[in-house]
Amino acid sequence: MVTVKDFKWTEGMSVVDLVGAMRNIGFQSVELAKAADLIVKMKKNSAKIFLTFTSNMVTSGLRGFFAQVVELGMADVLVTTVGGIEEDIMKSFGDKFSIGKFESDDVELHEKGINRVGNLLINNESYMKFEDWINPVLEELYLKKKNWAVSELLREIGLKIGEGFAPKGVHQGGASSSSSPRETSEEVSTRGNSILYQAAKNNVPIFCPAITDGAFGFHLYLFQQKHRDFVVDVVKDFGNILLSTNYDEKKAVISLGGSISKHHAILATLLNGGAEYALYMTTAHKTSGSMSGATTDEAKSWGKVKDDSDVATVLGDVTIMFPLAMISALEELKKESLL
Amino acid sequence: MVTVKDFKWTEGMSVVDLVGAMRNIGFQSVELAKAADLIVKMKKNSAKIFLTFTSNMVTSGLRGFFAQVVELGMADVLVTTVGGIEEDIMKSFGDKFSIGKFESDDVELHEKGINRVGNLLINNESYMKFEDWINPVLEELYLKKKNWAVSELLREIGLKIGEGFAPKGVHQGGASSSSSPRETSEEVSTRGNSILYQAAKNNVPIFCPAITDGAFGFHLYLFQQKHRDFVVDVVKDFGNILLSTNYDEKKAVISLGGSISKHHAILATLLNGGAEYALYMTTAHKTSGSMSGATTDEAKSWGKVKDDSDVATVLGDVTIMFPLAMISALEELKKESLL
Amino acid sequence: MVTVKDFKWTEGMSVVDLVGAMRNIGFQSVELAKAADLIVKMKKNSAKIFLTFTSNMVTSGLRGFFAQVVELGMADVLVTTVGGIEEDIMKSFGDKFSIGKFESDDVELHEKGINRVGNLLINNESYMKFEDWINPVLEELYLKKKNWAVSELLREIGLKIGEGFAPKGVHQGGASSSSSPRETSEEVSTRGNSILYQAAKNNVPIFCPAITDGAFGFHLYLFQQKHRDFVVDVVKDFGNILLSTNYDEKKAVISLGGSISKHHAILATLLNGGAEYALYMTTAHKTSGSMSGATTDEAKSWGKVKDDSDVATVLGDVTIMFPLAMISALEELKKESLL
Amino acid sequence: MVTVKDFKWTEGMSVVDLVGAMRNIGFQSVELAKAADLIVKMKKNSAKIFLTFTSNMVTSGLRGFFAQVVELGMADVLVTTVGGIEEDIMKSFGDKFSIGKFESDDVELHEKGINRVGNLLINNESYMKFEDWINPVLEELYLKKKNWAVSELLREIGLKIGEGFAPKGVHQGGASSSSSPRETSEEVSTRGNSILYQAAKNNVPIFCPAITDGAFGFHLYLFQQKHRDFVVDVVKDFGNILLSTNYDEKKAVISLGGSISKHHAILATLLNGGAEYALYMTTAHKTSGSMSGATTDEAKSWGKVKDDSDVATVLGDVTIMFPLAMISALEELKKESLL
Repeated sequence: MVTVKDFKWTEGMSVVDLVGAMRNIGFQSVELAKAADLIVKMKKNSAKIFLTFTSNMVTSGLRGFFAQVVELGMADVLVTTVGGIEEDIMKSFGDKFSIGKFESDDVELHEKGINRVGNLLINNESYMKFEDWINPVLEELYLKKKNWAVSELLREIGLKIGEGFAPKGVHQGGASSSSSPRETSEEVSTRGNSILYQAAKNNVPIFCPAITDGAFGFHLYLFQQKHRDFVVDVVKDFGNILLSTNYDEKKAVISLGGSISKHHAILATLLNGGAEYALYMTTAHKTSGSMSGATTDEAKSWGKVKDDSDVATVLGDVTIMFPLAMISALEELKKESLL
Repeated sequence: MVTVKDFKWTEGMSVVDLVGAMRNIGFQSVELAKAADLIVKMKKNSAKIFLTFTSNMVTSGLRGFFAQVVELGMADVLVTTVGGIEEDIMKSFGDKFSIGKFESDDVELHEKGINRVGNLLINNESYMKFEDWINPVLEELYLKKKNWAVSELLREIGLKIGEGFAPKGVHQGGASSSSSPRETSEEVSTRGNSILYQAAKNNVPIFCPAITDGAFGFHLYLFQQKHRDFVVDVVKDFGNILLSTNYDEKKAVISLGGSISKHHAILATLLNGGAEYALYMTTAHKTSGSMSGATTDEAKSWGKVKDDSDVATVLGDVTIMFPLAMISALEELKKESLL
Repeated sequence: MVTVKDFKWTEGMSVVDLVGAMRNIGFQSVELAKAADLIVKMKKNSAKIFLTFTSNMVTSGLRGFFAQVVELGMADVLVTTVGGIEEDIMKSFGDKFSIGKFESDDVELHEKGINRVGNLLINNESYMKFEDWINPVLEELYLKKKNWAVSELLREIGLKIGEGFAPKGVHQGGASSSSSPRETSEEVSTRGNSILYQAAKNNVPIFCPAITDGAFGFHLYLFQQKHRDFVVDVVKDFGNILLSTNYDEKKAVISLGGSISKHHAILATLLNGGAEYALYMTTAHKTSGSMSGATTDEAKSWGKVKDDSDVATVLGDVTIMFPLAMISALEELKKESLL
Repeated sequence: MVTVKDFKWTEGMSVVDLVGAMRNIGFQSVELAKAADLIVKMKKNSAKIFLTFTSNMVTSGLRGFFAQVVELGMADVLVTTVGGIEEDIMKSFGDKFSIGKFESDDVELHEKGINRVGNLLINNESYMKFEDWINPVLEELYLKKKNWAVSELLREIGLKIGEGFAPKGVHQGGASSSSSPRETSEEVSTRGNSILYQAAKNNVPIFCPAITDGAFGFHLYLFQQKHRDFVVDVVKDFGNILLSTNYDEKKAVISLGGSISKHHAILATLLNGGAEYALYMTTAHKTSGSMSGATTDEAKSWGKVKDDSDVATVLGDVTIMFPLAMISALEELKKESLL
């Protein structure tokens, strides 16, 4: 039986020490410590890790961390919503989002061309740059073939980001085949922090089952109006996520937030015999029967996670919970030379 | 200034009287009363109403109510997630879902072939029947054309449900052109309660931006493996939702729960100049920046709802909040002969 | 096994019919229907009913409903927080609270002398009138004896409210022994809606374990400064709640919201062998280990409710959930001539 | 304007570095970073700090941290609920609480004499030891005087804990005037982690406005039955908290969780002109008008916190949020030699 232990601060305390102490604190801190342990286990047991997150987390500063997690080999498959794709691209241009307030004068923001996501702010300009950049990319891809599965498209976009953006601005749409010599180191780092780029580079597919549900959807639609035989094939991509793993390999799901990104990953593991490991982090509760609040136990009834799987659910804001658990796991893996 | 009034029960109290009294009670009850008033306004001002809900609500007994709401002309466009489509079809066969507990032995349920959604239970059998039924329907539709927008597909399926199911079982897939003479009245009513059927019958399009994120996605994939030129065109369907309304007409959004169904509807209104009315009902809070918890105020910053729009947000379980507000509005509209 | 049934509206639908239908809808609506049934059972089985609520619910329009519930014999013991006492008294003067917004300019409100509780507003004036009224009452009671248990004090205050307020205003503090002839019928009804008055009249004790945690506490303190031997005896009152029931009689707890009012009632039933029936309504979840979110199951581990007790927990705003469940129970009891 | 920055892990990352990075992440992480800054400001500006917490936090491993925070001079006044008092004493005996599960077989726990608080477990034995210890302490105090304000009582108990427990067991009740030579170092450290002891030692008063709402209340009641003139004077203690600060000094409130502990502290600051700094950490939302969810903005309307005060509200589990913010502040203060 694990006992509760009096927590005490010691000077210079590291994240891994704090999370370690949480094993003996109680309530959600215990779940958080369990989450860290679970991530270590996933990696040690060579599970295929499905990491899912929603677009608001990409709006936040977690974007760079997701890219780093991919780079470090801690995620094998990504599932997200389309807003996350768009905003990763915007940030790859070096666009800055800013921090505002949950309580804002939204009419005033609207007049200023500022869009709010909780306490984060995105300028209309970022959407315009996105439009300017994505259209020539689509033209280029269309020349290769007409029918694209979503994850194929996102891989190409990721590679494109890696090529860097021409110094005269994204409006030209023309990206040179290598990083532009005139790019600053900050620009290079900004692109290095791109989830799409790191995913493409590390052969991690990104699935986005509702690719049209955002500004990107609108641009795809306008593009299709000009190119009637252009198809974004979501059915084909279902096959891709299905075949991204198999019955025999161990599977793990780390779901941050809810939505279809969470559901899509556990559906893919269900159809491959269920996950051995499942970690959910969410602010939603199970009491209304929503997917966001659905528990790892509920997932067992479906066979989405295996009956004897290792699971943890942490209730809380992902911008705090995920860094804590993942950093703790990374430090642990590093210590054991597994990273 | 509205004053707080002591609430008192009177014998035989109707729903509309209770909701009316809530105008003067406070906290969420005030929001609920406002929600009822807002629905009345939407209708009186001939707004195009976008109603969105998530699949768990179709799992629940709200399914019949959604169908009724469509039949009564209270929704002009529907947006939902694919689970809701699947379960509406299952229930159209007369399949029964049952009520369990939020705390269950999920390993035991799994062994029994029972899948849990909160405190609701779905048998594996229902999924098998769905598979048996959907495949011949897809074959039939494929003969008509190869490229289907999602809403076109859902409309055809709705009409198919209306034709009834052959008495020898759904396995034959052959439905006669009218309700089978051997169908019981319960069976007919079960189909009458179908959201897809009522939507098709009343020319209400159903949008489902992540059509592959469920069992249906798997069947579409298997079908495409046999018919390589079969395409489900989500990009085309983005055009359909975009053109389902326009700048000039008044637009209203009733979003139940969060997810992409909520986002897709407000994106469609955004691209048409923003909604005049917006009603959100959810258990999610705005504090983590999620779409489920995003407020109508936040929507103003995006232009998703207009600056001077009429809005209400009710925090609570939709299975309770939505019937209260909608019934109250229906009674009001009936009284004024507007229904 | 209870099945999910398609819910349909019928014109003129009553509250009891809606709540009845909720038995077959799912998620929290099922819990709500169970709550209504549980209240009926408590009454039919002659359980002693402990009703607890927090002060914000008295700020809201539920105040009159609580008084009515007491009058109808549906509560035998009340437990609340001191704000509820204060505000019941203020409303007994005929003071009006008003409905504002959750998002307000609180600095402006402060300047105007308006205090906010969620979306409800209380004027500073109401606190001043409370002060003017309570002081002579305390003087009068002090003449009777020096040592008062809290519930004794509240009973005397309730009787005082029943005597009515002199037409020249509460500032005189002198209340005639019967309702003043110059009182309007609205004034009489306002007093009739007083929880303290109805409780005193119907011999329902009111416990308030933290009587000093509000403006009343300040006035008690000032009074004690003038009368050093004046004692408010909370320890004695613990005996009173303990002896308000016993091992042999059936006990029921209806806890609205959390706080010490909830805990105090279940502590009293625990020390008397545990409750047979427990109904919790709250917006708090169990995941942080708080009393507000503590479940009826957790209560079993303590013996607060019996192992084989009938329990229900409804998650949602009490201003909506409580009227629904209680009205439904009242109609049911009325139908069976048990009210 | 603060910009969102891509967060990246670096090996050996400290808590203070992580919290620092959160300034640029978004959603609740920004609030958390603000909370850390706010604590630093409180200290730098020599504000009188009111720290409030609920009993479940003392059940958890935060108990030792609260004691440390007091020892480090980071809290000048404590307000809590009585369960926290009881459990601090139990832990001072060296009693171990253990970690279980939120979903438990509570009937089985009850049979085993185990009481559950969320995912934490307390044995009945701990309550029995508490009873054995507290009674002789009360006898001893009663010899000194008959009328005790709550905070006076708690101070004496704290000093008593500091004296240590006789090696033959707490059943003897007789504690020697200094730490027993036969106490192990673990026992001494256990007592050093006592909130009551550290508070008494550092002249930090502990207020507990509902002292009878727990097992302690029961023992006080039984004690009073034997000693009729024994009075626990809550009214007098209201004066004590009122006079614990004044209009002129700067005041700060750190409220963890809700309940009367939160309200009591802000009431005390309100009556002294309002707080300059207010930090709330809670899992409750403002939408139901509860005290647990009441915001620092709402507090401004009451004058509980000043119009131009520095405020932060962090939504999340206190067992995670409080260590993060407080550790970060402690490191900062240490760096500046202010600790």
